[in-house]
Amino acid sequence: MKNSPPQEIGIGLIGLGTVGGGVAQLIKEEAARYERSTGKRLAIRRVLVRDAAKAKASGLVAADIVTADPDAFFATPGVDVVIEVAGGIKPTGDLVRRALNDGKPVITANKSLLATHGPELFALARAKGVHISFEASCGGGIPCILALTLGLQANNISGLYGILNGTTNYILSQMANAGQSYAEALKGAQALGFAEADPTMDVSGEDAKQKLCILASLAFGARIAPDKVPCEGIERLEKVDFNYGAEMGYAIKLLATAERWPGHQWVCVQVRPCFVRKSALIAQVQGGFNALSVIGHATGHTMYYGAGAGSLPTASAVVSDLLSTVSGVAGTAFANLRFAPDLNEEAPVVNTADTESPFYLRLKANDRPGVIAQVTRILGEHGVSISGVLQHTVAKGEAHVPLVITTHQVRQGTLEKAVAEIEKLEAIAEKPVILRIVELPA
Amino acid sequence: MKNSPPQEIGIGLIGLGTVGGGVAQLIKEEAARYERSTGKRLAIRRVLVRDAAKAKASGLVAADIVTADPDAFFATPGVDVVIEVAGGIKPTGDLVRRALNDGKPVITANKSLLATHGPELFALARAKGVHISFEASCGGGIPCILALTLGLQANNISGLYGILNGTTNYILSQMANAGQSYAEALKGAQALGFAEADPTMDVSGEDAKQKLCILASLAFGARIAPDKVPCEGIERLEKVDFNYGAEMGYAIKLLATAERWPGHQWVCVQVRPCFVRKSALIAQVQGGFNALSVIGHATGHTMYYGAGAGSLPTASAVVSDLLSTVSGVAGTAFANLRFAPDLNEEAPVVNTADTESPFYLRLKANDRPGVIAQVTRILGEHGVSISGVLQHTVAKGEAHVPLVITTHQVRQGTLEKAVAEIEKLEAIAEKPVILRIVELPA
Repeated sequence: MKNSPPQEIGIGLIGLGTVGGGVAQLIKEEAARYERSTGKRLAIRRVLVRDAAKAKASGLVAADIVTADPDAFFATPGVDVVIEVAGGIKPTGDLVRRALNDGKPVITANKSLLATHGPELFALARAKGVHISFEASCGGGIPCILALTLGLQANNISGLYGILNGTTNYILSQMANAGQSYAEALKGAQALGFAEADPTMDVSGEDAKQKLCILASLAFGARIAPDKVPCEGIERLEKVDFNYGAEMGYAIKLLATAERWPGHQWVCVQVRPCFVRKSALIAQVQGGFNALSVIGHATGHTMYYGAGAGSLPTASAVVSDLLSTVSGVAGTAFANLRFAPDLNEEAPVVNTADTESPFYLRLKANDRPGVIAQVTRILGEHGVSISGVLQHTVAKGEAHVPLVITTHQVRQGTLEKAVAEIEKLEAIAEKPVILRIVELPA
Repeated sequence: MKNSPPQEIGIGLIGLGTVGGGVAQLIKEEAARYERSTGKRLAIRRVLVRDAAKAKASGLVAADIVTADPDAFFATPGVDVVIEVAGGIKPTGDLVRRALNDGKPVITANKSLLATHGPELFALARAKGVHISFEASCGGGIPCILALTLGLQANNISGLYGILNGTTNYILSQMANAGQSYAEALKGAQALGFAEADPTMDVSGEDAKQKLCILASLAFGARIAPDKVPCEGIERLEKVDFNYGAEMGYAIKLLATAERWPGHQWVCVQVRPCFVRKSALIAQVQGGFNALSVIGHATGHTMYYGAGAGSLPTASAVVSDLLSTVSGVAGTAFANLRFAPDLNEEAPVVNTADTESPFYLRLKANDRPGVIAQVTRILGEHGVSISGVLQHTVAKGEAHVPLVITTHQVRQGTLEKAVAEIEKLEAIAEKPVILRIVELPA
């Protein structure tokens, strides 16, 4: 891309699914706009897919440029940039390596590849004098990577608080606003195409975790390996949690958080459902939308909101990266600013047990006298300070009654130890649900 | 800044007030971080101020680099970049021109200068082979200019909806949440330093208008002259408007809007207080914060939120621009992407009278029978379709009673004509208040 690039920029596109189709559509429909803006003409020269017949039938690109053969793809002359929107680690990782080894900059939407192999791939790009752009890997159409790498670069960032998965936010919104159960909301999300047939990657928090690792590595200038990040999904939430939350002024959000713990350089990175005060802006993010709150020492709180997935929103991020690549902006930033994790050490990640927070605790107890006394005694013995206890009248026919306890700031490990003891009480029916209470600044 | 920049980057700083002090503080305190990130050392070589004695006494920079003499400032050797945070058009405009003529890139927070002289200054920078960076001119610490110029560049943008002035948003928040009158809220804002002794620039909407012109010129790739932008302030709002709004599910926000009118290339640009549905994210922006909602054809709705003013937030934008300048990113973007208004034609701005919207209309009427009939008759004669009429019981001792009418979608010019006629009715006590009702997407 250096030294007077050609008037026409040849693109190799890997993947022609939801996002790839959106990329092809934008490049076709907005050709005049992009040419006017960059002075270059964009041309998709070759498309690599698994199922060539299906891709040819789609009509999204000319049939004669579609191939299922990687060798044919990489032998195509005049490819200046490779866009990878196929997803997955195998064989996609090897295709990205091959493009970089050929000296092509790569634009990718592949969160799982970057979260697990990012440092290696960034180093390869650097060695080959090219770059990797990856805005589309996190937050769909929201330019949040741009904000972290350029817009907020004057800041010492102390916290990221993200809603990074639209599927789970849709499910939580339905549970909160339409009073649906988790199973009902999941079924509805699947019917609308928001959730996959196997929703595990989304509802377990795994998808949000991968994105969080990418974002946190940029925010904190450090490598953050996904396998060290604790992650809890939304599967055990019940209507009653939303009801108690609402009563106390909280919404429930699956938050991906990365915080520099006060007083030292450790970073605490985790994904878990949290109580967030309803007046906090991020608590208002509804349905399939995503948002990222960033706390910088100079800016204070800034937030970035938008569609976190979908064909055209994600393609918007890919094509914006393409235009930044074509104009030399992305390559200059990658080469001259030290944000990519290949240049940084692994972050010292603090064990979540050693962090402190207020918590919400929901127990299912037999409806008999003395349970509250037993539970609060154990919490007291561990030094857990209680801020509130709520126990509504039990519904007819229910053998167990939810007992809700909120705590003041407490070491998470201490709380978990107390809860392990509480769990053994004969009166406690199932594993308690523990939600962190996160207080965000205005 | 081209051709292997020096290891040490010399900075000339114009202005050492609230923002300039923040810039000096960041460059001093975060020196190691910035050097690590860019590989360059930042050094403020000279500071130009009006009152040298005051600046020297501030201790923000070494006394011996402070001068009140522009000739001494521009004669300083080793200045690679000029930062202008003095504000105003005279003499600041000439200082910026001089820096550009000397071949220095300029980073500025000066909204009024750019809104009125932007095209000329950008053209001068281009002719001299340098660039102007101006993130700090709009939205304080929010990287919204970066979003429009790079992050969303794949999009055909159809709308901007911004809360671009923190002072007025603070006043509106106090009126909405604390039940204060306009006068009380303004006084409070002044006591807290949110509003100037002469608050006209803020409360009239003029400040928001200047920022809107800069943002809209980037979003629509066109020059937008402030003198063609209709602008209405918040001075005539009363508690009763907030009460009626709340009853109907709306918040009142001073919105700076720029919309591409459906069906043609015209842009409609205006600043005015609006009803915004309370469930819209932008309606939740409280106090001195700013937000910008952008509607792109690919991304859909994205929003950018944060502190819109203040020393360190604004300095964050200035210093982030500085780091982008030092790394070559800002210069590459300015030279190779066609966003700056010097390269674009003047936008065909549509007369707001020709646009359509639903509206809220508040009249003060004598409390006697028949007024509603008179008013609704006139609206009907003009073809204005009414969606609701509200008239609460009058407070004791009040001679006039507010009469509130909401309309369906109507041509603004038609409504204004009807209102001009209503205003002449004997029963109508003062000039009616007209608020636009803006429905934003999720």
